[in-house]
Amino acid sequence: MVRYAKRLDRLNSSDIGDLLKLIARPDIISFAGGLPAPELFPVEELKQAGIAVMEEMGSVACQYSSAEGLPQLRQKLADRMAVKNNIKATADQILITSGSQQGLDFAARVFVDEGDVILVESPSYLGAINAYKACEPTFVEVPTDDGGMVMEDLDKILASTENVKMIYVIPDFQNPTGRTWSLERRKKFMEIVNKYEIPVIEDNPYGELRFENENMPALKSLDTKGLVVYLGTLSKIMVPGFRLGWVCANDEILEKFNTMKQGADLQTSTLTQMQANKYMDLYDLDAHVHKIREVYKHRRDVMMSAMEEYFPKEAKFTHPDGGLFTWVELPAYINTKEMALQCLEKKVAYVPGGSFFPNGGKENYFRVNYSCMTDEKIIEGVKALAAVIQSNLKK
Amino acid sequence: MVRYAKRLDRLNSSDIGDLLKLIARPDIISFAGGLPAPELFPVEELKQAGIAVMEEMGSVACQYSSAEGLPQLRQKLADRMAVKNNIKATADQILITSGSQQGLDFAARVFVDEGDVILVESPSYLGAINAYKACEPTFVEVPTDDGGMVMEDLDKILASTENVKMIYVIPDFQNPTGRTWSLERRKKFMEIVNKYEIPVIEDNPYGELRFENENMPALKSLDTKGLVVYLGTLSKIMVPGFRLGWVCANDEILEKFNTMKQGADLQTSTLTQMQANKYMDLYDLDAHVHKIREVYKHRRDVMMSAMEEYFPKEAKFTHPDGGLFTWVELPAYINTKEMALQCLEKKVAYVPGGSFFPNGGKENYFRVNYSCMTDEKIIEGVKALAAVIQSNLKK
Repeated sequence: MVRYAKRLDRLNSSDIGDLLKLIARPDIISFAGGLPAPELFPVEELKQAGIAVMEEMGSVACQYSSAEGLPQLRQKLADRMAVKNNIKATADQILITSGSQQGLDFAARVFVDEGDVILVESPSYLGAINAYKACEPTFVEVPTDDGGMVMEDLDKILASTENVKMIYVIPDFQNPTGRTWSLERRKKFMEIVNKYEIPVIEDNPYGELRFENENMPALKSLDTKGLVVYLGTLSKIMVPGFRLGWVCANDEILEKFNTMKQGADLQTSTLTQMQANKYMDLYDLDAHVHKIREVYKHRRDVMMSAMEEYFPKEAKFTHPDGGLFTWVELPAYINTKEMALQCLEKKVAYVPGGSFFPNGGKENYFRVNYSCMTDEKIIEGVKALAAVIQSNLKK
Repeated sequence: MVRYAKRLDRLNSSDIGDLLKLIARPDIISFAGGLPAPELFPVEELKQAGIAVMEEMGSVACQYSSAEGLPQLRQKLADRMAVKNNIKATADQILITSGSQQGLDFAARVFVDEGDVILVESPSYLGAINAYKACEPTFVEVPTDDGGMVMEDLDKILASTENVKMIYVIPDFQNPTGRTWSLERRKKFMEIVNKYEIPVIEDNPYGELRFENENMPALKSLDTKGLVVYLGTLSKIMVPGFRLGWVCANDEILEKFNTMKQGADLQTSTLTQMQANKYMDLYDLDAHVHKIREVYKHRRDVMMSAMEEYFPKEAKFTHPDGGLFTWVELPAYINTKEMALQCLEKKVAYVPGGSFFPNGGKENYFRVNYSCMTDEKIIEGVKALAAVIQSNLKK
């Protein structure tokens, strides 16, 4: 009889994977995924970039390349982080990963042994939680409010918890809540982290999708002790199907990630790295991001208006300044996993919130995505959701 | 102070990564890598396939897709395994990975807890050994001879060793030795494995690069109990820079690999999967493989002749029927790591053999690659190697 490793006891086929299958049903209005809008992809430009790469350096694009990634692409990402996030880093402090999901997986493998503690926002990104589970950690959830992680709670937890090996946070337009930390909280966070000297994984897939107000500096830009590992990705601003993300960390930490990369898959695709790099040579990524931001902002507005108009007052939800998601809280007696089945009958889907709490026990939330639907579908879907919620309320 | 996970104590930046850097020096005649010959890549055809994908289904190629991989590509690989390896499998029994290196990494994570035993051929592929080390196993090396793994030793080791969780083998044109198992050994192997019911990782990157004699059936084709996990790759027959490999296993085992994939990087690049799939729709992969096989056969012949002519009789080496490597054994008093530095002075490189023995202690071997050099360079390099070996022999 085949025996499996103990770490598998903690893992199930992830909710994300199952949900991607649901999304494939064309009759469903899906607020479930976190997919960018496919009609906005720069398909023609990426095609031209691909042609240029194959004509100019085809045999290089087809060959193996270094684990760290394409030097020119790493330099561009370093330059971009300087402008967008106020992060000062060299190309050598960047590792190209197969999406930022791979950075999440490596983070746990670099820092966490069985039984070690990972601190996460409550709630946090379920794809990260699932990746981390393979290292058999204990999760401690840090309370959040409308401004993000609550710093007083963080300080108390760090003061009283042994073996905390890393803190995982998404300070900008968090997945699932859409919330963003204020500058004051960011400074306070780094003050606390510096006191305890715990590595921080700062996951920032949505930072450039800001619809209003000012950009916040990345935690990494406030990091004076080399504690912050920053994860970036091209998935939400350029193209997810190329699987291009990156890790930025100080030299010592990045070397550990590079070692992981060699064992995990040798390197990220040479072709997709060169094609994305060439796209940035030939075209204006900022202009593209500006365009998709306008569309997502509009869809956010449509969704917020519809939820305000149709949702019963018992349903509370966040008002994100950017990103792809809003987060709905229902009365504690409603189980959103059960309600999801009623919603599927009405042909509308969301992600039940329970999986975003690693220690479970909170089933009255759900996540809603607004990035890849037409106005009409958003309104129709919100109306259907509202009706199902209404029917679940105690009179 | 930042603390790292215990698993990192076992890992160093891999020899392969360091070697890929050496190869980059244009003045070196490198027999070190395992790189396919870049002048043989079907660059124009892959370019056309990329154009077709972007024009016909560009927004699909740019979007997220399923963890398991593109259904059409998985079907083609299932069909190909049936013809080339006598393996009967459905598309659903295949997971697309980011190169077969990712399959190696997942294998250990699926089957191996800290302290569990992995059996490997002695010597075995160092990229697998390094990937496995992240799961903190104990390696037991099974002796090999010119015909591959010695079955009597395998049986004895399995009878007397606790907690063997998997057996890793490369039966065709092994890396590093170039050796191939006979049909008789394959049958005996499956008989023994069936007795103990231990999962087998059959790694077959080079099987289609056979220069003479008959194809051997894959172990997977002889597997009656669903114990064999087969790893294939397009790296050596089509294009390594796309990072496309696959895992083929029975339903229960494959489900565990699929779960690992979701956590590790969600999915392999949609674009490179669709581009490789389109290449196979538009062009004749078999004809391409035939072409590269002829070139590699010629280079193998050139290298064998040169080694027979110039190497001192104290240097013994294998005569591979296919694949990319030959394996050289020197007298036990010669340390090939130290000799590698002398060779670099003469501008020729190989991989010292020590790292291919996970438990160490054998430093008088080295691996030689013949796939990506001109005839002249092969002869010049072998002459230089021969001179250095000669100078290290005791008079």
